[in-house]
Amino acid sequence: MRALEGDLSLLSMNTATVRKQLALPAIIEACARRGIGAVCPWRDQVQAAGLDATARQIRETGIGVSGYCRGGFFPAAYAAGLRAALEDNRKAVDEAKAIGAPCLVLVVGALPGALTGKPAHKDIGLARAQVFDGIAATLEYARSVGMPLAIEPLHPMQGADRACINTLEHALDICDALDPAQTGALGVAVDVYHTWWDPKLAVGIARAGAKRLLGYHVCDWLVPTRDLLNDRGMMGDGIVELKKVRGLVEAAGYTGPVEVEIFSDTWWARPAEEVLDTCIARFRSVV
Amino acid sequence: MRALEGDLSLLSMNTATVRKQLALPAIIEACARRGIGAVCPWRDQVQAAGLDATARQIRETGIGVSGYCRGGFFPAAYAAGLRAALEDNRKAVDEAKAIGAPCLVLVVGALPGALTGKPAHKDIGLARAQVFDGIAATLEYARSVGMPLAIEPLHPMQGADRACINTLEHALDICDALDPAQTGALGVAVDVYHTWWDPKLAVGIARAGAKRLLGYHVCDWLVPTRDLLNDRGMMGDGIVELKKVRGLVEAAGYTGPVEVEIFSDTWWARPAEEVLDTCIARFRSVV
Repeated sequence: MRALEGDLSLLSMNTATVRKQLALPAIIEACARRGIGAVCPWRDQVQAAGLDATARQIRETGIGVSGYCRGGFFPAAYAAGLRAALEDNRKAVDEAKAIGAPCLVLVVGALPGALTGKPAHKDIGLARAQVFDGIAATLEYARSVGMPLAIEPLHPMQGADRACINTLEHALDICDALDPAQTGALGVAVDVYHTWWDPKLAVGIARAGAKRLLGYHVCDWLVPTRDLLNDRGMMGDGIVELKKVRGLVEAAGYTGPVEVEIFSDTWWARPAEEVLDTCIARFRSVV
Repeated sequence: MRALEGDLSLLSMNTATVRKQLALPAIIEACARRGIGAVCPWRDQVQAAGLDATARQIRETGIGVSGYCRGGFFPAAYAAGLRAALEDNRKAVDEAKAIGAPCLVLVVGALPGALTGKPAHKDIGLARAQVFDGIAATLEYARSVGMPLAIEPLHPMQGADRACINTLEHALDICDALDPAQTGALGVAVDVYHTWWDPKLAVGIARAGAKRLLGYHVCDWLVPTRDLLNDRGMMGDGIVELKKVRGLVEAAGYTGPVEVEIFSDTWWARPAEEVLDTCIARFRSVV
């Protein structure tokens, strides 16, 4: 396993981690100042800061980019036709390209309307079929501009409203179907929060291998977890075997950064500088 | 598929559904009065009412029993040795026998101490190994008295604190290992709340077949779900494809009752009679 203690170049901060405290330019500045290796920004943050300005700031600070969040949500857009779903995802691909991201992370979507408590239907099989078609169509465009797509399986508790791909196995089955040659154009982002419980996690990580492991995200699973969305833990505060999972990912050939992504009302309520410093300390000690 | 509309004999009430409103004798009485076919009582409720008195009431009312909740929690008991874990589970088997239950439902347990927020360790692989050993040892006793054990895979969001068997596939792998001859001594309880999201649910139900499908539980998955434990929905209020899943279970050969099990602060706050009548109405219309 790689030694992380002295090397922040392998740390990436998903910018959602301090999104409530700082705007994107200030997040990038605070990360760069600390020597953090990379960031993974979100579309709404980039939109607020301006795409060109963000791309310029990233170039000028020399900070890396571990990914771009996020494309996907295919079934919701499907209501207006596959064309609409694709149009938005093509834009996301272009933005990812503009900021120099190595991949576009896909949160694929689920039952349309469920996110606002009004699901249009209950047919998860239909949602999964639309997701498959949406990824296939987006992949065609993404290939043409050289932007890899990273399917992120979400925790099953988010299967109705956010992503109906809920296991690494399911995500890899889609990769096999759409990119059987393992060209690197389609892969997965493995987030411990979503996958730690999976009895087939080790098998899935090995199966993904270096060609399909496009991202590795960490936080922690708290006991108790008080909210299905915004109660993720700081690394070390929960029960995820972080070093064990990183060992699996690295044994499979992953050489990219470790991205910290914490959605947490608790940590959003603390000063950004404290959150970032805590992430660095935990990255060095428990990740 | 079986026609449920006119036949409450196929309805079972898990007694946790109205546990906050009524003591067990009153629940059994209210169910029997409505012509509900069966109940599935919990150990603490039986203990409060008395085992002999409960067994007698069940006999006298003529109501059926769809299962007994619950054995398991092996890793927690393991702290005091496998013997302690087994002793409590043997008692549960005996109680199940006394009330005439067709199976003892196993909620297998997970990281010891996690349920109180103080996990003794994070090694889910170890917990799973202890669960396997615990089931194996309990099975030996359960076989000797003729009490089938039903492993209930719980939702992955409960994988740290309540049950580290979180997929039907995992549960069936254990069945294959411990009862390869499919004698009926070991099987599964399929609860839609825990399994609806699983892309391999249909495959798993077919694989289980009549010999291993020992229970079928329903409620619904709400969007949004506000609590990881006590926000289950009344059938029809969420996004689970209830008729589709029952169709799968029945196509696989399941002929037992449909058990309603709702942990819900919302429904616990309503009068028990209203809850039971609503369960009956929904059983007839959407299950």
